[in-house]
Amino acid sequence: MFGARCLVRALRSCSSAPCPRHKPSARLSVRDALGAQNTNGERVKVQGWIRSVRSQKDILFLHINDGSALESLQVVADSSFDSRELAFGSSVEVQGQLVKSPSKKQNVELKAEKIEVVGNCDAKAFPFKYKERHPLEYLRQYPHLRCRTNALGSILRVRSEATAAIHSFFKDSGFVHIHTPIITSNDCEGAGELFQVEPSSKIKVPEENFFNVPAFLTVSGQLHLEVMSGAFTQVFTFGPTFRAENSQSRRHLAEFYMVEAEISFVESLQDLMQVMEGLFKTATTIVLSNCPEDVDLCHKFIAPGQKIRTYAKKQLCNVAAVDLLVPGVGELFGGSLREERYHFLEQRLARLGLTEAYQWYLDLRRFGSVPHGGFGMGFERYLQCILGIDNIKDVIPFPRFTHSCVL
Amino acid sequence: MFGARCLVRALRSCSSAPCPRHKPSARLSVRDALGAQNTNGERVKVQGWIRSVRSQKDILFLHINDGSALESLQVVADSSFDSRELAFGSSVEVQGQLVKSPSKKQNVELKAEKIEVVGNCDAKAFPFKYKERHPLEYLRQYPHLRCRTNALGSILRVRSEATAAIHSFFKDSGFVHIHTPIITSNDCEGAGELFQVEPSSKIKVPEENFFNVPAFLTVSGQLHLEVMSGAFTQVFTFGPTFRAENSQSRRHLAEFYMVEAEISFVESLQDLMQVMEGLFKTATTIVLSNCPEDVDLCHKFIAPGQKIRTYAKKQLCNVAAVDLLVPGVGELFGGSLREERYHFLEQRLARLGLTEAYQWYLDLRRFGSVPHGGFGMGFERYLQCILGIDNIKDVIPFPRFTHSCVL
Repeated sequence: MFGARCLVRALRSCSSAPCPRHKPSARLSVRDALGAQNTNGERVKVQGWIRSVRSQKDILFLHINDGSALESLQVVADSSFDSRELAFGSSVEVQGQLVKSPSKKQNVELKAEKIEVVGNCDAKAFPFKYKERHPLEYLRQYPHLRCRTNALGSILRVRSEATAAIHSFFKDSGFVHIHTPIITSNDCEGAGELFQVEPSSKIKVPEENFFNVPAFLTVSGQLHLEVMSGAFTQVFTFGPTFRAENSQSRRHLAEFYMVEAEISFVESLQDLMQVMEGLFKTATTIVLSNCPEDVDLCHKFIAPGQKIRTYAKKQLCNVAAVDLLVPGVGELFGGSLREERYHFLEQRLARLGLTEAYQWYLDLRRFGSVPHGGFGMGFERYLQCILGIDNIKDVIPFPRFTHSCVL
Repeated sequence: MFGARCLVRALRSCSSAPCPRHKPSARLSVRDALGAQNTNGERVKVQGWIRSVRSQKDILFLHINDGSALESLQVVADSSFDSRELAFGSSVEVQGQLVKSPSKKQNVELKAEKIEVVGNCDAKAFPFKYKERHPLEYLRQYPHLRCRTNALGSILRVRSEATAAIHSFFKDSGFVHIHTPIITSNDCEGAGELFQVEPSSKIKVPEENFFNVPAFLTVSGQLHLEVMSGAFTQVFTFGPTFRAENSQSRRHLAEFYMVEAEISFVESLQDLMQVMEGLFKTATTIVLSNCPEDVDLCHKFIAPGQKIRTYAKKQLCNVAAVDLLVPGVGELFGGSLREERYHFLEQRLARLGLTEAYQWYLDLRRFGSVPHGGFGMGFERYLQCILGIDNIKDVIPFPRFTHSCVL
């Protein structure tokens, strides 16, 4: 008997579970409504938040957004609807007919037959005002609400698209995805200040640790990917990394995301650079093609002065390392070939007094060692780079940095 | 001028950078070699680790694995090759002709013209022995090497496939991916023991914190997804979550992965269950179709006695919550409708004395609130469930639990 298949069958029976199902009739996302080909008066239901209200003679125009696209759907209603509750920021459900719009501004519009206010918006207290373009610095004060603006909506959709594109680039290239650990006992990597982890309720006795050893938040998945590159020739990870650096600069975060890859049997830095290039090009092409309006919004309104002028490449063939630096953003990529020879590594670790702690790392070179190398790409810096966003705090949903861990 | 496009152009020039490029001639992964249609003596290069060596008369048979598939590639060499260095676990590069195999065991084999040992394997010290099937408990002692076994190779490939499948299910269903924070100042969620985070070098003064407030590792992304569900009608996150529970059971980890989704404008639990069902079915179908050999290995050899007999569903319509429990695995899914009404939530928070700390959470209900709900799926438990793996420590690359944080 096949366990998984059995479970699928079992789950399927949930569909006919006793609870009544209220299947919404032709519920459409704003994105799907905007892209609808059939506008012969099809009856649909659209749900979202009011982005604008405008009265003109006997007609009421609303724009509804649900986060599925930057563009909002125009709703046209006659004066029989009470416009007092239809305020900026309120959530609504609109039923009506999807028709071709007489205006050139949009292809389709929704002729309202029923408008239901789902949740009111206290306009006086709401920090964002209708028709006002608020600067990103202002939005940062409202981490729980800023996603409701066009600017953050676009940035977060791009972030989501880029995340999916990075996963599919590596999958299509034959890489195995590895969840490298967040909590680690490797404390000697020397990559800036570490965060230490301890149970919150623990009575702090320095000799006693939850994990028996001091444990830290990861600064890089490289060493763990190197473990995996002794079994899989191409591996990658895409997860959070941490630095306890006392910096409030527009370039640094205490918690940020890194894409890291490790490749076995590499022959030169060129092998790595080819993958770095492929990653950048593929992800960027997908983002530009899937959300051009969102990218345009960033370039036109958020960062019109932020042109990425050129790039600097520091290629140090001597030490087999390569960095890609982007002006205004900092280091975007860093890659290197690793030391695969047992005796060289052993000597180096012995000199640093780390032989015992890193015996496992030496072991990797003792049992079928291979030349290998890898690179890391800062994900927020990548987003800053393609969107021209000046401050790293604006490209991550919930920024963490010195003196700030809101929500 | 278009910044991103400019950078793509700049990156493209890396291709013609001064370092000489050693382009490998027809380098194939084992997976691609095994699936090759053209076996008319094409000259290829395959790199990997020796999984078996067998001498027979004047012929030497090797099996080479590179992690791209469970199956190894058979290499056939004549007696002119020195077999002494060709040991189990060594890394090799083989050049030769890809030909149709006379044996029924495989379609193709590689007729070796050149075999180069890249890295020897110290067979006496190597903890895994040729032709021996080591139990998972034994492999757990070698977290830096266990990925080199068939068992962990299969499990980690399935984990990687499932990760990709989960991302594509949500993307195809119109969900926006959100990186919910790992470090959070929400400490009142009551979901077990929390880990606290502090800079490692800090002089510990209780009043002073790096973030100004006590900071913890996340136990769930739900509240942060709820923030996002005020702007996007469908959001999900897939990342690490933490519990500082003193447990070494086969069901618990201190660091594990959760898939969490939040949906706006839900009308009933059925809406949530439909997504839960779709997620489970789609991911499982993709895994079964993309790596059937890996799933089979787990079912046949690792967990032959581990049949998933049935499932238990606890549906509590009264409190608008649903859990899916799997015998032997525990809670796989948990979902619920959230309280979207401002005054109800305000009263509840006031009763708990949390009004001030959760003013931001109340705000979400003050500005265009919508009925919403969501669910979480334990990713390791999902893998245990479809593979029939008894111990959660065997489905995560680097398990962290009480008294153990190795590497």
